[in-house]
Amino acid sequence: MAEIIDGRTIAKELRTAVSQQTERLAQVGVKAGLAVILVGDDPASQIYVRNKERAAKKVGVVAETLHYPTTVTQAELLTKIDYLNQNPTVDAILVQSPLPAHINEETIQAAISPAKDVDGFHPENIGRLFAGRNEFYPVANTPRGVMTMLAHEGVSLDGKNAVVIGRSILVGRPMFALLAKAGATVSLLHRGTPSALKRQLVQAADIVVVAAGHPNLLKGEDIKPGAVVIDVGINRMDDGSLVGDVDFQAVSQLASKITPVPGGVGPMTIATLLETTVELAARHHGIELEQGWQNI
Amino acid sequence: MAEIIDGRTIAKELRTAVSQQTERLAQVGVKAGLAVILVGDDPASQIYVRNKERAAKKVGVVAETLHYPTTVTQAELLTKIDYLNQNPTVDAILVQSPLPAHINEETIQAAISPAKDVDGFHPENIGRLFAGRNEFYPVANTPRGVMTMLAHEGVSLDGKNAVVIGRSILVGRPMFALLAKAGATVSLLHRGTPSALKRQLVQAADIVVVAAGHPNLLKGEDIKPGAVVIDVGINRMDDGSLVGDVDFQAVSQLASKITPVPGGVGPMTIATLLETTVELAARHHGIELEQGWQNI
Repeated sequence: MAEIIDGRTIAKELRTAVSQQTERLAQVGVKAGLAVILVGDDPASQIYVRNKERAAKKVGVVAETLHYPTTVTQAELLTKIDYLNQNPTVDAILVQSPLPAHINEETIQAAISPAKDVDGFHPENIGRLFAGRNEFYPVANTPRGVMTMLAHEGVSLDGKNAVVIGRSILVGRPMFALLAKAGATVSLLHRGTPSALKRQLVQAADIVVVAAGHPNLLKGEDIKPGAVVIDVGINRMDDGSLVGDVDFQAVSQLASKITPVPGGVGPMTIATLLETTVELAARHHGIELEQGWQNI
Repeated sequence: MAEIIDGRTIAKELRTAVSQQTERLAQVGVKAGLAVILVGDDPASQIYVRNKERAAKKVGVVAETLHYPTTVTQAELLTKIDYLNQNPTVDAILVQSPLPAHINEETIQAAISPAKDVDGFHPENIGRLFAGRNEFYPVANTPRGVMTMLAHEGVSLDGKNAVVIGRSILVGRPMFALLAKAGATVSLLHRGTPSALKRQLVQAADIVVVAAGHPNLLKGEDIKPGAVVIDVGINRMDDGSLVGDVDFQAVSQLASKITPVPGGVGPMTIATLLETTVELAARHHGIELEQGWQNI
């Protein structure tokens, strides 16, 4: 039976570390500021943004949400982003997706200053990550959170065989880049991967990260005994329950470590967003954070 | 016995297509301009730059080389790049590597305007590629040339299993991204990949691209019979001969298609550089090139 990787506990440790840094910043008169742009009335987005605000407040990050009706124009958003880029009290900018169809998400992402791009979606930051650069730059928070979990659990990556299932720019692609940067040999699988090939590659993997949005995509017979399994999927079932992309019951019999859903990767995303916000604030004000300040 | 993929012939076809486009551009008064910055007296770099100039002239691209002594400062180069970025007669800028140790190559690459970045090394262009964006942006010319060869040979990539050996930002990483964008499932191998894992992954691959700079890295027993093998390596042996990273003698018995060294990928790089230069010039002057104008 696999060891359960408890995302709630790791996220809590991370939030505590973030609190300590915001206190340190406060001592030199710096408040880490996060601006969130929310467009429209999607209930899931509203809940998510409210959770971000609440979590930010708890760790001493000043979060402000700018809420626009769905009728907002792209030009209005770009003007606002430009203002936030210039505003010295704002260290981090986040645009909640999805955006209405008349707004081009890539244009909006590219308009955010790379130095305030807390989601790591600006092409320049994606490029630095994919190039494997060693300097600091923001990285998409969900895959970064997965790396924190793997580090916390002492999972070594150098020389290991890793498989990422799903190639979204939010999770799969940056996950690939982060695992490769850590020395793993990584294969990127997607919906176009034939099932026989998928089985073959997954069965050879030491680490499997699934981010496909498809319940029961990974089954017990798919994995190598002893593999580490990270489930990024969050799927709401007809009965209202939340499940991941992994058949937890079966896979947890064979894996050495596994993340549950809920309580696995999910809680890490907002904690990591706050971690990145503090780092951007420190850089913005020329304050050096200690390497490994998160102590995870 | 594998079919030989003849890079010289494909490069020639590509150069012919480029010539036709420069003529088309000339009819509307546009000359495609390529600026090459060369620092120091490395003989290989000098030969390479001279070959670029010669090839440019033949297809109607105006190439200018700016040659600096190794004592040039980074600030001087940055000033020059800024001037070239502003200069309307320059459509494409290339900085020949290697640069002297006192100059930071990444700083130089990031200083080139993304719209004139003919090598595709600017983080913003790398980011667009890794994000799988569909709009036009420059891509590193060697891996782009490999994609042209695969298209020319009618090798389908969608749903295929591809392996890239070597993770340089010049070849391996963009090669990974291009193959993934074309629908392949791709694994990125590197010097830290354990040999048993390497053998396992390579033996399952339909397409193998080797860019490791290591003679005889890929041997006959490594590949799946019928695989397509692309050898990006160029290694000069003690006797002066050039060999790739593939044991051509053995691997060509099993592969369905294979590139030789020399005469394979090598000739594609400069032809693709000129292809990209013409595309940048067309965009710069607001001229739309026909999709698939290369007719390859």
